[in-house]
Amino acid sequence: MTISMLSGNSASQMLTLLRTHRPLVHCLTNEVVQEITANVLLAAGASPAMVVAEEEAGYFASISGGILINIGTPYVARLKAMHAAVDTAIETNRPWVLDPVAAGGIPWRDGVINTFVEKRPTVIRGNASEILALAGEKKGGKGVDSTNASDEALEAAQRLALARKVIVAVTGETDYITDGIQTLSVPGGHPMATLVVGTGCSLSALVAGFCAITNDHLTATATACALAKKAAEKAMIRAHGPGSFHNEYLDALYQIQPNDFL
Amino acid sequence: MTISMLSGNSASQMLTLLRTHRPLVHCLTNEVVQEITANVLLAAGASPAMVVAEEEAGYFASISGGILINIGTPYVARLKAMHAAVDTAIETNRPWVLDPVAAGGIPWRDGVINTFVEKRPTVIRGNASEILALAGEKKGGKGVDSTNASDEALEAAQRLALARKVIVAVTGETDYITDGIQTLSVPGGHPMATLVVGTGCSLSALVAGFCAITNDHLTATATACALAKKAAEKAMIRAHGPGSFHNEYLDALYQIQPNDFL
Amino acid sequence: MTISMLSGNSASQMLTLLRTHRPLVHCLTNEVVQEITANVLLAAGASPAMVVAEEEAGYFASISGGILINIGTPYVARLKAMHAAVDTAIETNRPWVLDPVAAGGIPWRDGVINTFVEKRPTVIRGNASEILALAGEKKGGKGVDSTNASDEALEAAQRLALARKVIVAVTGETDYITDGIQTLSVPGGHPMATLVVGTGCSLSALVAGFCAITNDHLTATATACALAKKAAEKAMIRAHGPGSFHNEYLDALYQIQPNDFL
Repeated sequence: MTISMLSGNSASQMLTLLRTHRPLVHCLTNEVVQEITANVLLAAGASPAMVVAEEEAGYFASISGGILINIGTPYVARLKAMHAAVDTAIETNRPWVLDPVAAGGIPWRDGVINTFVEKRPTVIRGNASEILALAGEKKGGKGVDSTNASDEALEAAQRLALARKVIVAVTGETDYITDGIQTLSVPGGHPMATLVVGTGCSLSALVAGFCAITNDHLTATATACALAKKAAEKAMIRAHGPGSFHNEYLDALYQIQPNDFL
Repeated sequence: MTISMLSGNSASQMLTLLRTHRPLVHCLTNEVVQEITANVLLAAGASPAMVVAEEEAGYFASISGGILINIGTPYVARLKAMHAAVDTAIETNRPWVLDPVAAGGIPWRDGVINTFVEKRPTVIRGNASEILALAGEKKGGKGVDSTNASDEALEAAQRLALARKVIVAVTGETDYITDGIQTLSVPGGHPMATLVVGTGCSLSALVAGFCAITNDHLTATATACALAKKAAEKAMIRAHGPGSFHNEYLDALYQIQPNDFL
Repeated sequence: MTISMLSGNSASQMLTLLRTHRPLVHCLTNEVVQEITANVLLAAGASPAMVVAEEEAGYFASISGGILINIGTPYVARLKAMHAAVDTAIETNRPWVLDPVAAGGIPWRDGVINTFVEKRPTVIRGNASEILALAGEKKGGKGVDSTNASDEALEAAQRLALARKVIVAVTGETDYITDGIQTLSVPGGHPMATLVVGTGCSLSALVAGFCAITNDHLTATATACALAKKAAEKAMIRAHGPGSFHNEYLDALYQIQPNDFL
C-alpha cells in the first residue's frame, strides 16, 4: 500500500471550493463540543446547523450538504435522530462522517457505534485507540483520549477501510487518511490542541463539510486534517496555553487562505 | 408607519436600569449556545439561569424577571418545559421572548414555533428569513442563517407585529424593532458577529433581560440590540477573527457604560 | 473548631500528584458548562469524560478516578445516569463530588439534591446560599448566584459536614473546606470569576480530580480551591473583562506549577 503526502495544490483547491460553496453541515454531535464545533465550521467557511429531534433530523439531512455523527454522549433519543439523519444520507447519497468517540472503552457504546459502522459511513475519523478498537485489535484508550500513537493504528486503519469499504482517518501526531489502497499523510499540528476539548470532534465536522463539496472524499478528508493542523501551528505563534490557543485556532481557521497551502 | 432611531438617552437610561436591577433571566434555549448566552447576560449585567426540567421550569419562571424561549434545538421533553415556563409567564404577566430559529426551514419545526407564536410572546426576535417566514412570505434561510437582508423583512415585521399584537425585532445589518405602529431602527454592528455561534441567540436573551426592568418593551428591545451592536463594533478594534471577537465581544459588553450611548 | 490556612507545601504536593497521575474525571454536569468543565480539567492536568447515558454511566464510573455530580440542569433521564454513577462510586469506593446548584431555590430541585446528599458524597461544594440551604437555614440565593458571603455559611458548613459525615467546601471571597472538625481556609481569587459561567461548576470537577489521586480528601479539595483562586489572580493580570478572563484563566491553570504554591 502506498502512502503519499497530501499535495498543497489539492488542499488549496479544496479550500477554495469550501469558501465558495459554504456547505450546510448537519451536526449530530456530543453535548460537550457543540459550540466549538459550530464555531470551527463558521470560522473555516461552512454553515453549521444542529437539528437534533428525531422528528426533524431526517428531513434536515435531506437539505444538508454533509452530516456528522459523533458518538461522544450517546443516549437513546439522540441515537434515533442520528439514525434518521443517516438513513436520509444513504437514501439521498449524501456524505456522512462517523466519529466513534471512546470506541473500545465501554461495551454498550461499542454496540451503539457498531450500528453506525454497519451502515457504512463515508468517512470514519478517530484517534489511534479508537481505530485500533474498531479494527478489533485493542480495548480502547483512557476515556476519550488515545493511549496510542497514530502510526500504531495505520495498518489497522487500512484494514478497516478495506473491510468496511469506507475512508478511515486516524489522527494524531501525523494524520493518515486511507481508503485501504491509497493513503494520504498529513504531518504537523501541535499537541496543545489535545488540551482543548472538541478540536478532534470539530475536525470530524470539517471533514463532513469538505466531503460536501466534492466526490473526492479522500482528498477532502485529508484537506480538513491539513487545515486543522495548519491552524494549530499558526495558533501556537501567539498562544500561551489552551485558553488562548482556542481563540487563536478559530482566528487561524478564518485567516488561512487557499494559497497558504501552496 | 414612522421609523425613528433609538435615542442615546433612552438606551443610556435602560442600561442604567439593567445594571441596577441585575434581572434574573430564565433561559430555555438551544443546546449549542447555552454557555455564550449565560456569559453574554453576565457580562452585560444580568443574572442568567437555565432551568430546563418540566418539573421546575414553570415554578422558576415565577421567580424570574424575564424568560427566553429559543427554538434552536427543540425536542418534545424540552418543549414541555418551555410551555410550562411560558404559561407561568402569561399567568404572572412576565415578559417572554421567542427566538424562532430557522423558522420556515423545516415543517415540523414550523408547527412547534407556531404553538408559541399563538401564545403571544412579548417580543419575537429573528433574522430576516425567519421573520419573513413567520409573516407567511418566504420559505426560510439556509439552515439557521438568513438569506435576506433585514430591510427586506421590515414590512413583514410590521405586519406580523400588528397581526399578532407583539413586538417584532428583525436583526441584521440594521435592526428594526416594531410594534407595528412605531418602529425603532438600530444601525451599526459588524458582520464578524455572524461567524460566532450564539450572538443572535444571546441577543434574544438580552432582550428578555431588558424587558424585565421596564414596561416600555419597545425601547428595551431596541436597547438590547444597540448594546449588542456597540459591543460588536468595540470588539472589532482588537479582534483578528471570530475567536478573538468572541472574547472581545464579552469584554465590550462588560465595559460599555450607560453614558457611552449619549 | 480550628481553622487553618492550606499550606503551600501540601498544595504543591497535590498538584504534583495530579500532573503525574492525570486522573480520569467522569463528569455528569449541567448543560451550560460542559465545555468549560472539560477545558478546566484538561488545562489543570486531568482527563475529563462526559458519559451521560444511564446505560453506560455506571460502567464508566468503575474505570474513572473521580466522579462529579452537578445539579445545574437536572431532569429525570439524566438523574438516572447520575444515580447509576454514584452507586458504582459507592460500591467501588471512588470519590464523588456533589455540586448542589441553586439548592434552596426550587422545591422540586431540593428533593432531587436530597437524594444525592443521602448517599453521602465524598465532598459537597457550593456557594454560601447553597450550603446554608442544605444546612436547613435559608431559602436560597438569586437563581444560581449566592446572596450570602462565604463567612456567613462557615458554621452551617461545619454543621452539615458533621451531620452528614462529608467534606463541605463553601466557596466565595474566602473558601472554607471542612470535615466538621478541621477547617482549611483558602483566601484570594477575584470576583471577575463570578462573571464567567462555569467557574464554580468546573471547580467542583477539579475537586473530583484532586480527590482521585489521594485519600486526604480535605487537603485535595482545598488544593483545587487554591489552584482556582491562584489562576483567577494570574488571569486578572492580563484580562480586561470576562471574555479575556475566561481564556487567561485556562492559560493560568495550565501554566501554574507545583512550586508556585511554595
